[in-house]
Amino acid sequence: MTRFLTVVPVEEAVRAASGLARPVGTETVSIEGAAGRVLAVDVHADADLPGFNRSTVDGYAVRAAETVGASDALPSLLRLLGRVSMGAGAGFTLGTGECAYVPTGGEVPAGADAVVMVEYAEPLGDEVLIGRSVAVGENLVMPDEDFAAGEVVVRAGRRLSPQEVGALAAVGETRVEVRRRPVIGVISTGNEVVPVDLTPARSQVRDVNSHLCRAFAHERGCEARFYGIVRDEAGPLRETLVRAASECDAVLVSGGSSKDDRDMGARTIAELGEVLVHGIALAPGKPTIIGRVGTTPVIGLPGHPASSFVVLTVIVAPLIARLSGDETDRSRKVRGRLAENVPSARGREDYVRVTIDSGEVRPIFAKSGLLNSLVRADGLLRVPAGREGYETGDEVEVLLF
Amino acid sequence: MTRFLTVVPVEEAVRAASGLARPVGTETVSIEGAAGRVLAVDVHADADLPGFNRSTVDGYAVRAAETVGASDALPSLLRLLGRVSMGAGAGFTLGTGECAYVPTGGEVPAGADAVVMVEYAEPLGDEVLIGRSVAVGENLVMPDEDFAAGEVVVRAGRRLSPQEVGALAAVGETRVEVRRRPVIGVISTGNEVVPVDLTPARSQVRDVNSHLCRAFAHERGCEARFYGIVRDEAGPLRETLVRAASECDAVLVSGGSSKDDRDMGARTIAELGEVLVHGIALAPGKPTIIGRVGTTPVIGLPGHPASSFVVLTVIVAPLIARLSGDETDRSRKVRGRLAENVPSARGREDYVRVTIDSGEVRPIFAKSGLLNSLVRADGLLRVPAGREGYETGDEVEVLLF
Repeated sequence: MTRFLTVVPVEEAVRAASGLARPVGTETVSIEGAAGRVLAVDVHADADLPGFNRSTVDGYAVRAAETVGASDALPSLLRLLGRVSMGAGAGFTLGTGECAYVPTGGEVPAGADAVVMVEYAEPLGDEVLIGRSVAVGENLVMPDEDFAAGEVVVRAGRRLSPQEVGALAAVGETRVEVRRRPVIGVISTGNEVVPVDLTPARSQVRDVNSHLCRAFAHERGCEARFYGIVRDEAGPLRETLVRAASECDAVLVSGGSSKDDRDMGARTIAELGEVLVHGIALAPGKPTIIGRVGTTPVIGLPGHPASSFVVLTVIVAPLIARLSGDETDRSRKVRGRLAENVPSARGREDYVRVTIDSGEVRPIFAKSGLLNSLVRADGLLRVPAGREGYETGDEVEVLLF
Repeated sequence: MTRFLTVVPVEEAVRAASGLARPVGTETVSIEGAAGRVLAVDVHADADLPGFNRSTVDGYAVRAAETVGASDALPSLLRLLGRVSMGAGAGFTLGTGECAYVPTGGEVPAGADAVVMVEYAEPLGDEVLIGRSVAVGENLVMPDEDFAAGEVVVRAGRRLSPQEVGALAAVGETRVEVRRRPVIGVISTGNEVVPVDLTPARSQVRDVNSHLCRAFAHERGCEARFYGIVRDEAGPLRETLVRAASECDAVLVSGGSSKDDRDMGARTIAELGEVLVHGIALAPGKPTIIGRVGTTPVIGLPGHPASSFVVLTVIVAPLIARLSGDETDRSRKVRGRLAENVPSARGREDYVRVTIDSGEVRPIFAKSGLLNSLVRADGLLRVPAGREGYETGDEVEVLLF
């Protein structure tokens, strides 16, 4: 039994964890509930969009050449051929010296090549005074200007935004193929851990980490499945791990926080599969385990909530992205100036909890066993392995929660 | 009938819309599904947390004074009194010249005031060589250091993060009172609008905006209820509005994009209740209606998807936050440098769709009727009403999608 862990760089740990994951299968869902899901296939335009010359304003369809030089003082006079109704084709063709009223979104009739906004036109019985010149194409959308038939509208791998759902609707997709939600198993370990609804006896703690893990997975579009609190004994852990690994796409083993528990966790994973990493050059979060049981990735998280959260952010989030087939970067990063020095040891990545207020970044130097610092913090400041920290006044990037 | 709208500043429009909204009622949910919900009441710590002197490392509990001057070369020698087990009280008190093994998370026995990490200690039978001095309080958490009994752990108005769910678990909350999901009614209008599953005839368009609105509401934790596509006739719109206003917490009327439709929308809302705003100094998004039917806020959105999206972001998002009792700012903003000039008219707020790549912000100058620009963009650049735009090289803030 060694007293020190053999640590690997963060990048290598991320690669090891994500390398174990394969994208989950797909399912077809209605676009009503597709926002936030990951699109599994490229979606193409079924036809040109909008498919006709579409006015972008309320105004008069004209031949642009016939407005050259027009002004309030010296307007062009055009004959009003008719009015286009919404949703009905124009049904006529504009000839020389003619114009037609078109509402926003209405079809610009054949023969016209621009639209003059209603604000710059003055109807006079059967004629219209045009007080402004327009260029060819002004105030209208060409038939394939939004999307051309066959063009990719939304790419596979996108976690769908409301705008993208709108685009899917525009090309007639009422149901789309998305990745199913990955199932993340969560096992709590530790003789000191009691369920949340119990009042802990002295020296016991409530099961915080499994809730942290479940909410984290949930927030990232996964289904979280809880396998209970397992005592620090090899038998129950082995049994639970085998079951969770066979039922889930990845398994998080939360705690134990002491070295003995961690050794038991690593030993059990090694017995059932393989331990790839035991120890990351990461603070907090060093005593992390990355392994597999069968082909299912298993991550052993440290027992401290703050350490656990850093490992969720740095290691588990990319693993979930890979399982989900998610190629969208939705991380929230802001830049600010440090209000205090942040020391760090070269050779390991530090994630320091920080608050940020009006661009001022302030580190919270708190023990990693504390939850209050995690709740108080606005985000994490990453100190790369190659740096010995940052100094007051340095501009830094903060990963917001 | 006027040809120009009377526009109000964006701030006034936001105030008008949000002023119509009252926070919805509450419900009690399990913390399993509480992430992303808005906490309705302050949650307090039920007791001191952790409630005992808790070791943050695997190591030896000591009296700090007895390690003064200790080094590898000149270690302190202490008698090993016992080993503390996880989840079990220490059951003994440390006397002079004594130490005890404590695992991470274990209880530091009475009489001890610090913990020496196992890496700096060498057990020798019944005695331990301590090779490093520690300060009082080092490597342990005091009984009330995380939260003191009665202290607020998470405040009302927070949209719960995984970390906050963890904190709720830590203080024994298995069920919490949250705001119920606001119900947002969505009505599509426009004779040119056809359901998504139909192939539009020439001059028709698919119902993009209602999907955009529904997904937007959904993404912000609301339930979206769709009331169908209503033709541009006063009767059906009136009927549908009355029903939606009585069943929902707010109603979005999407489209019509032409002035005639908008007038009908405003007229109908005015008949049934009140129109507070018809026209905002906002581009795109000027022809927006803010009103109420009974006490239910009703927002009339412009027909162009990009305009509609800007109004959702600028006006509807704060309205939903108010309905949800949500005081959390989760907007994602990044700073970057403009790669091109962005002209803007003084006196109105412009929201320009932009891409951002390695800190370079590039405007997409696209017609507001186009969806592709909305899908291609990474976010919106706000040009305040008091500016005539930005110049190449200016540092600007982008509101990410």
